[in-house]
Amino acid sequence: MAKNAFYAQSGGVTAVINATACGVIETARQHTDKISKVYAGRNGIIGALTEDLIDTSVEPEETIAGLRHTPGGAFGSARYKLKGLDENRREYERLIEVFEAHDIGYFFYNGGGDSMDTAHKVSQIGKTLGFEITCIGIPKTVDNDLPITDVCPGFGSVAKYVAISTREAALDTASMAKTSTKVFILEVMGRHAGWIAAAAGLAGETPSDAPHVILFPETPFDEQAFLSRVKHSVDKHEYCVVVVSEGVQHPDGRFLADAGTRDAFGHAQLGGVAVTIAEIIKSHLGYKYHYAIADYLQRSARHIASAVDVEQAYAVGKHAVELAVNGHNAVMPTIVRESDKPYRWSIGHVELSRVANREKKMPRSFISRDGFAITPTGRRYLKPLIAGEDYPPYKDGLPCYVTPKNKAVPKRLKEPFVLR
Amino acid sequence: MAKNAFYAQSGGVTAVINATACGVIETARQHTDKISKVYAGRNGIIGALTEDLIDTSVEPEETIAGLRHTPGGAFGSARYKLKGLDENRREYERLIEVFEAHDIGYFFYNGGGDSMDTAHKVSQIGKTLGFEITCIGIPKTVDNDLPITDVCPGFGSVAKYVAISTREAALDTASMAKTSTKVFILEVMGRHAGWIAAAAGLAGETPSDAPHVILFPETPFDEQAFLSRVKHSVDKHEYCVVVVSEGVQHPDGRFLADAGTRDAFGHAQLGGVAVTIAEIIKSHLGYKYHYAIADYLQRSARHIASAVDVEQAYAVGKHAVELAVNGHNAVMPTIVRESDKPYRWSIGHVELSRVANREKKMPRSFISRDGFAITPTGRRYLKPLIAGEDYPPYKDGLPCYVTPKNKAVPKRLKEPFVLR
Repeated sequence: MAKNAFYAQSGGVTAVINATACGVIETARQHTDKISKVYAGRNGIIGALTEDLIDTSVEPEETIAGLRHTPGGAFGSARYKLKGLDENRREYERLIEVFEAHDIGYFFYNGGGDSMDTAHKVSQIGKTLGFEITCIGIPKTVDNDLPITDVCPGFGSVAKYVAISTREAALDTASMAKTSTKVFILEVMGRHAGWIAAAAGLAGETPSDAPHVILFPETPFDEQAFLSRVKHSVDKHEYCVVVVSEGVQHPDGRFLADAGTRDAFGHAQLGGVAVTIAEIIKSHLGYKYHYAIADYLQRSARHIASAVDVEQAYAVGKHAVELAVNGHNAVMPTIVRESDKPYRWSIGHVELSRVANREKKMPRSFISRDGFAITPTGRRYLKPLIAGEDYPPYKDGLPCYVTPKNKAVPKRLKEPFVLR
Repeated sequence: MAKNAFYAQSGGVTAVINATACGVIETARQHTDKISKVYAGRNGIIGALTEDLIDTSVEPEETIAGLRHTPGGAFGSARYKLKGLDENRREYERLIEVFEAHDIGYFFYNGGGDSMDTAHKVSQIGKTLGFEITCIGIPKTVDNDLPITDVCPGFGSVAKYVAISTREAALDTASMAKTSTKVFILEVMGRHAGWIAAAAGLAGETPSDAPHVILFPETPFDEQAFLSRVKHSVDKHEYCVVVVSEGVQHPDGRFLADAGTRDAFGHAQLGGVAVTIAEIIKSHLGYKYHYAIADYLQRSARHIASAVDVEQAYAVGKHAVELAVNGHNAVMPTIVRESDKPYRWSIGHVELSRVANREKKMPRSFISRDGFAITPTGRRYLKPLIAGEDYPPYKDGLPCYVTPKNKAVPKRLKEPFVLR
């Protein structure tokens, strides 16, 4: 008997997480013998806890197809981490109750490390409670910090946006340097790993090209070395482009940009390090500066998504469903790099227990010895991930992004669930 | 006898100022009976004063054609304003000496209001000194503040970038609002006029769409009204997207973002108002926020330039040369709107004396009565300007922007010129 499937988006959204949703739903629709309807969680896992399910089966084919080119999270995502089974067993039990009430036999959880952990725990509690549930994690994160998979869908498009923006802003800065701005600073995301900052390095092809300095979270901030590097660039090229990761830290481990606020996962809310860097440059070197803070623009820029990233995002969604209908459980599809040049990849899979709560650091071999640039090794890894353009359709000069109806599935449980 | 031409870029560069250069050079190459070589000023007008001219005639056709899709200022621009004739006559005389030494009979000056003033003054001093020089101003400014021309090349592409970025970031914010960011703030350029901020209004098509609040320089900042608007949006939609112009002012005329620094024209260097707005929201309403500061990204984003803007930028360059070879002097080509729907435009021209140093304000009729949105009148004006995509060619995932050789013309004058 076919069971329903539950799909939820988790954590920070990306330009291509909906392409994964598209892959899940389109593929599920090809397996009606195994999967009846795909329900999506309104606001991710919260939709499951509060029994607020979206019936994607009422969406026409064109809307589902349109998800492939629509940024953001079409069903709502959530920063909501389920605790350990011992600490908050009630939440897991509630998930199972909702799944049971709605005849859900498949759980697809689309997120980062925390979410892979949750999917793994749900598979365990299902066993404990004697409820059969197939749990598949689907990788997504602009931070590119999931282990084992060669890359995380979402990262390639941010990488492309950041590389292109760096190249463009560098041309702007270079033209103005004689009489105006000498230093341009671009702040990019990347809390603990410099993957996104590294991608900016693709903007330049020779040592004199921008970016002239990259500040990685992996390199403790050395003010003197940094200032001397900026001065050298201005002396030599008349300008300097700095790309700074939000996660840059003092040698003692404090973030340069820690504003003191915390998110739901207890992580520091960062942002604004560009201003700190600008002030350091201004006070020591006196150069006129400009800074941009890309923030959400970088992870929602579907208009310039990487074609490789879109394909991979779709593929992990598709394969997640295929793994499920072929009897796999507690696994996550991965992207396997077959070769760098020409770039070839395939889809593999891994046990959730092996990816849950493990953060992949950027290899030290990607960062130059002086700590301010990427190496040829880093470039070889990054380059294929930004290949190809996958333009959305346009009308009147604006991209046509789809808005699903997001019709609620009637509730079946009597008790509401109060979120922590 | 054919004379050489001098072309200079002035002020802040745009995604399409090189498309204008392309129009000038390609058209001049079709009029070899009148125009011999096109020299470009290295770093704009400074190149003329210091006799640092670039010989564009050595650039192959492909490079010149490639300027059409290359952002920034390919020959360097400058923020350098020539004073009045009485105050610094020496600078104008020097220009004429350089023009005379290099057999320059045409002066094409590509910039905003200040530059149109300079072009006008050069035409006057030429007459006074008995040196025949044809002076043509060519409009360029992302600020869209030149009078008479319906639009300034450069504006349409910023407008498109801002509208698309607003739409994309809004989808991101909406998906996260349940558990995370409720307010997203995008800071855009526009020192004295809200043209760019207004363009963000195109992102939404219904009143519930983002942006929910636009802060214009034209509307004195009313903190209470603003906060109540933000709260209303969060209550109703669970999130709020705010687009704020860098030029937003307190009721007493002080900029919210005045950092106290001044540029070469004596204008305040702005930037960072997004942080001020974020702090106001945080302290009064307590919402979690994110902000992006687009800065140079918005005016260099050739990857998503407006096709209409690119065409118009090219056309004003082309027509500038045609006006010159047809005997016009001290004029500027203009863009004339023939109809809104379908959008039709043609090229006209106007005397430089009528545009010099005059700033066009955005009509009050473009801003809604409450001061936080655009009106249908504003939308009708803005909409056609962002129409069409004009994608640059790509290689390995990155746009192929051209770099001219910028070969110097041998100097002929003995005396160097010391800039103020």
